[in-house]
Amino acid sequence: MTQDWVDTGVFRLPMAAPEDVSSLRELLESGKIKAEEIVGIIAQTEGTGYARGYASLCMQLLLAEYLGITPQAVFDRIPMMMIGLCGGLMSPHYTVFTRSVVANAEPVGSPRLTVGAANTRVLAPEEYGTLTQVKLVAEAVREAIADAGIDSLDDVHCVEVKCPAMTPARLEDAAQRSQSVVSTNLGQASSMSKGASALGIAVALEEIALTELEDGVINRDRRLYTQRGSVSAGGEQSACRVLVMGNSTRSVSPYRVGHGVMADQLDTVGIYSALKAAGLEASGPLTPEQQQRITQVFVNCGADAVTSVRDRRHTIHSDFLSGYAGIVAKAVANAVVASVTGDPMLLASAGNEHQGAPGSNLVAAIVAVDD
Amino acid sequence: MTQDWVDTGVFRLPMAAPEDVSSLRELLESGKIKAEEIVGIIAQTEGTGYARGYASLCMQLLLAEYLGITPQAVFDRIPMMMIGLCGGLMSPHYTVFTRSVVANAEPVGSPRLTVGAANTRVLAPEEYGTLTQVKLVAEAVREAIADAGIDSLDDVHCVEVKCPAMTPARLEDAAQRSQSVVSTNLGQASSMSKGASALGIAVALEEIALTELEDGVINRDRRLYTQRGSVSAGGEQSACRVLVMGNSTRSVSPYRVGHGVMADQLDTVGIYSALKAAGLEASGPLTPEQQQRITQVFVNCGADAVTSVRDRRHTIHSDFLSGYAGIVAKAVANAVVASVTGDPMLLASAGNEHQGAPGSNLVAAIVAVDD
Amino acid sequence: MTQDWVDTGVFRLPMAAPEDVSSLRELLESGKIKAEEIVGIIAQTEGTGYARGYASLCMQLLLAEYLGITPQAVFDRIPMMMIGLCGGLMSPHYTVFTRSVVANAEPVGSPRLTVGAANTRVLAPEEYGTLTQVKLVAEAVREAIADAGIDSLDDVHCVEVKCPAMTPARLEDAAQRSQSVVSTNLGQASSMSKGASALGIAVALEEIALTELEDGVINRDRRLYTQRGSVSAGGEQSACRVLVMGNSTRSVSPYRVGHGVMADQLDTVGIYSALKAAGLEASGPLTPEQQQRITQVFVNCGADAVTSVRDRRHTIHSDFLSGYAGIVAKAVANAVVASVTGDPMLLASAGNEHQGAPGSNLVAAIVAVDD
Amino acid sequence: MTQDWVDTGVFRLPMAAPEDVSSLRELLESGKIKAEEIVGIIAQTEGTGYARGYASLCMQLLLAEYLGITPQAVFDRIPMMMIGLCGGLMSPHYTVFTRSVVANAEPVGSPRLTVGAANTRVLAPEEYGTLTQVKLVAEAVREAIADAGIDSLDDVHCVEVKCPAMTPARLEDAAQRSQSVVSTNLGQASSMSKGASALGIAVALEEIALTELEDGVINRDRRLYTQRGSVSAGGEQSACRVLVMGNSTRSVSPYRVGHGVMADQLDTVGIYSALKAAGLEASGPLTPEQQQRITQVFVNCGADAVTSVRDRRHTIHSDFLSGYAGIVAKAVANAVVASVTGDPMLLASAGNEHQGAPGSNLVAAIVAVDD
Repeated sequence: MTQDWVDTGVFRLPMAAPEDVSSLRELLESGKIKAEEIVGIIAQTEGTGYARGYASLCMQLLLAEYLGITPQAVFDRIPMMMIGLCGGLMSPHYTVFTRSVVANAEPVGSPRLTVGAANTRVLAPEEYGTLTQVKLVAEAVREAIADAGIDSLDDVHCVEVKCPAMTPARLEDAAQRSQSVVSTNLGQASSMSKGASALGIAVALEEIALTELEDGVINRDRRLYTQRGSVSAGGEQSACRVLVMGNSTRSVSPYRVGHGVMADQLDTVGIYSALKAAGLEASGPLTPEQQQRITQVFVNCGADAVTSVRDRRHTIHSDFLSGYAGIVAKAVANAVVASVTGDPMLLASAGNEHQGAPGSNLVAAIVAVDD
Repeated sequence: MTQDWVDTGVFRLPMAAPEDVSSLRELLESGKIKAEEIVGIIAQTEGTGYARGYASLCMQLLLAEYLGITPQAVFDRIPMMMIGLCGGLMSPHYTVFTRSVVANAEPVGSPRLTVGAANTRVLAPEEYGTLTQVKLVAEAVREAIADAGIDSLDDVHCVEVKCPAMTPARLEDAAQRSQSVVSTNLGQASSMSKGASALGIAVALEEIALTELEDGVINRDRRLYTQRGSVSAGGEQSACRVLVMGNSTRSVSPYRVGHGVMADQLDTVGIYSALKAAGLEASGPLTPEQQQRITQVFVNCGADAVTSVRDRRHTIHSDFLSGYAGIVAKAVANAVVASVTGDPMLLASAGNEHQGAPGSNLVAAIVAVDD
Repeated sequence: MTQDWVDTGVFRLPMAAPEDVSSLRELLESGKIKAEEIVGIIAQTEGTGYARGYASLCMQLLLAEYLGITPQAVFDRIPMMMIGLCGGLMSPHYTVFTRSVVANAEPVGSPRLTVGAANTRVLAPEEYGTLTQVKLVAEAVREAIADAGIDSLDDVHCVEVKCPAMTPARLEDAAQRSQSVVSTNLGQASSMSKGASALGIAVALEEIALTELEDGVINRDRRLYTQRGSVSAGGEQSACRVLVMGNSTRSVSPYRVGHGVMADQLDTVGIYSALKAAGLEASGPLTPEQQQRITQVFVNCGADAVTSVRDRRHTIHSDFLSGYAGIVAKAVANAVVASVTGDPMLLASAGNEHQGAPGSNLVAAIVAVDD
Repeated sequence: MTQDWVDTGVFRLPMAAPEDVSSLRELLESGKIKAEEIVGIIAQTEGTGYARGYASLCMQLLLAEYLGITPQAVFDRIPMMMIGLCGGLMSPHYTVFTRSVVANAEPVGSPRLTVGAANTRVLAPEEYGTLTQVKLVAEAVREAIADAGIDSLDDVHCVEVKCPAMTPARLEDAAQRSQSVVSTNLGQASSMSKGASALGIAVALEEIALTELEDGVINRDRRLYTQRGSVSAGGEQSACRVLVMGNSTRSVSPYRVGHGVMADQLDTVGIYSALKAAGLEASGPLTPEQQQRITQVFVNCGADAVTSVRDRRHTIHSDFLSGYAGIVAKAVANAVVASVTGDPMLLASAGNEHQGAPGSNLVAAIVAVDD
């Protein structure tokens, strides 16, 4: 049926600062983006968590104008995933995904990019990092896949989840209700929330059977992981927000998405695999024309999950910046991927709780179809 | 004459910690390295300057045993260049260069690796960062080139200089003698010392004519630079120590050295150029056999000299780890080069004072000759 | 004339996070603070500069509601001085100053707290750190003193200035107009802007004669300083914003302000002097009742201007956190002052450009009058 | 019997750098310190753990000369406790304790300073953080008390313990022997080692009964703690090294030691208590003469064990330097204590595992007897 055709837009926009939403404003003003067609935003903000909140508020204020709703209603409606702290060559930016129904489209002959979103219900702090969260996320991922109109799990190439972080207020709330949480350490509890979310993705994508899991394996059994998911946590979230990217024959988007795995930080073959899966085949250095077709790359970085690469000891956890291994891990992965794609304005996120084998990077690439 | 033949050894040895000199001890014990043949050591130590001093002392104590001289005499005799602070995948290690005279060698048919060393005289603090330092370093580089037995400047591929850093004691010394220094800010004065040293290399290699220079250009005119030198400063040095690597037909070493320039942080072509100059030609990913031939790589990293790469703004100077841009710059360059060579145990040093065009990396590779 | 009486309110409010303006919202809702009576806000925000902007935007949004003007108009109307980065025991909070005309007040018999505000005109980037800025700030401080209704300079106890920081955009603007700036290094240019502002305070308070000054002394001659001023810089400011606190017989405020100088970081006598000047006399430890009367303390911290205290070398500029000496300097001063006042929720700001003799702290205390 | 009299010397010596042992060398050369009379050294080194090792090696090399034994034998003989990382006003230094037998001494009429040392046996990695370690430390503390010639536990005022940290090599060793350790996370296992050591002190001092303890309480039950102990961990230690300071009527030392507790970071009363216990009574600010009598102060700092002080939230664990809360905690405690004693060259160590109630500081002062 003609009403089934959808078009998916991808807009990667630079930010001069966390509060800089001028590029989006221009596109809204010119009509190139319609506010009501935005299905999700993933941003790489510079600075700490406060900059994430600042950027989010500025986007909400802008979209509230165009949607005629409150900033809070914008937050509830559109998943906004802010990944904070840039390291090295990382270039602050945000990616806006849009979706529009296209009447009477011509079939394009190959599966194209489609994006879907879904949320879990609000989680209680005592549910963070538990099998309950695994199941809720798995369910939301399945919903988002359906929302994207993807028929086969093989067509899902990237699942981004923003889950709740533990906060002092939430700890207190649980304590007042006499509920015990997975950890009273904020960082550990938040890490468990990420771990459960990642396992939820793996279950939804059938990389792991739910029956293999129990509470005790979360953030313990490192043999269990998804290879197509990336999770971050934020205190601003009370539910898990899910964004799925995949390909569908019902999409007439000019883009295709694919994924690959870098077995370790030096494995450029994994980058080429992701590009190939997205329709860009190359052996050896890319031409500028090929690089131009790469619209966005999402990398989940795992350098900080291990203490060596190819049997060479590194000091990412013990040297001067030891407290910030995640930032440096992102800097490293961003640089290596950018040395292939030619553009450091890609999304690099750290977090290795059940996201890839320890030390590996997960790469998803969106590539413009070559006509 | 047969006595002209020299052999140059290169031993790249891992360190489990700054005080770990066990690999060198083993090689000395087994006779694979003769202490009196060591012409220089360049180390990449983890940790701050104190770890550099610690590592140096441990090496001095070890070599004092084998040379039968005091630890201080070891320091005076063998240039020991300790590059501190590892970031990302950087793997602590040290490279020991040896030189031995070979009687009755067979000519090997092509120029091979040779290494030479020299020192300037002790500099007064008021000379740091001045044209006097430029000239003294230029002279020492020429001496080291002669020491290496290199005939043509084109055969010089890497000059490493360790120059004096400004210290509170040196400031005071100059003040007491009513001498004014280039800056009373320790960091700035040390940076000027590095800048003057780099220009000294450029003059010796005839990349710049001495007549083009005056005190005012040091660390000001960024169009002046060497493309084959790398400089670091240390409070332990009172003279400039110079180590030159190049090729000579009088060497029967199994290695060759070459250099290349990465125009920016993503420019892998510059890495391939260096490898090719060292005798390893490849288009596209290296085979494991080719990677195996790469004995050591020296990279001077310039990411922190600029605020963007390929027109993408980065936050290396403004984000969370802003005070440590040099470490992150090293992490980035190390990762990109290692993604080509397959080994992160290479030497990455930061410092962009007249060392390459702003934002570029200088790469020198030592490669085993392929027989 | 009765219309001359003014009342000055001081509200010190905790922040649970940069975006937390709930305490101010409550006071506005309950009518305890009237939005139109707010003359200035000084905040101590946690986090970096982005958190400062975030906090500012949240306050602007709140006050825009109550004043019926745009957030930008709020920014233009009310000086909002955000001091970022808390260290140690520092407790994020903001201080709201209000001023209201009181008809038919009873004279209170002693000079009481009064607050005045003023701005310079917008400065061009090439004016930052120059004598022009010194003069403009001096003029604005005089205006703010008049605005506060203070008759004698002796009654001025604390001048807070927020001046423009240099930004890449401003550098570019100056370059395009072929104007040269004091430094193309962002940090140094911003530091010069602070230095010029501090000297402007000193000139207005007649601590220094304008005739003593020339461009060359700014941030060079450390013998020149104010002992009643504190300056910070921000990229969000294009003019200098000035807030003056002093005492006036025309004020019926329940508070009095006083100042003192801590000659070095261990000099608690300076704290007692400030309290005494504000009407709280004590020799030795304060009673809880006395501590209760201390409404707010402003400390300008100078630990990082020197490298020793009482002839004991410290490592604030060379040890692990060397890049962050200012934060640690604030942590140290905050702790020492709080150990006297009993409350770490005081305002500690770093920056020693012409703000006190090197190594000293400037202390201003607002104390409730003891009836 | 006359041979029972001992004299205890305390030498607090500044370090210009970790490798600077010149002050000790001078005292050895002049005969003011006899190498064979040294019973322990506690140093506050700048820099990270590598600087600790560097300082230790330099002291060992120096003492090896004077004792005519190897550097390793020096390490085995003399407890050398290196506390690394200075923050804020902290001034790098080391304290050398000596003990000599005095024949025919005159009784001095009051208990005086005495110092004792002891070691546990070497611990296996799997014993770190267990009740076994608690018991071994308790035993060693009792031995050190006996060694010091202290009769009553009330006369013990400060117990310093340096215990083994977990290292990768130790983890591997345990794994190879199929032994499970308390945690495979290096930081957590080392923290458990400190916790067990602190509980060992508490047991020896009868602050806690051994019967109250089981493995599960270590680093869990924060109601259990010593108020006279301070513990740090180091990878260079394989046994626990114990140094006890107390008073004895058999000592003719010119010093006395006392202790006190700062209930929170602002509680200066606890400092005065410690001084009073050591024989220096004062209400209110000390005179310079009184300050002069204070020979050394040891502070165990607990700011980072809590997230607020006097109901004021602080950001020591969440703000910019969040990874370094311990350093900032030391900076804060050092500054507050030094504001009373007038000298920042005191020993401040962090670590709150069973060392004082959460958020408190433990203070021990050595004061010259006022004749």
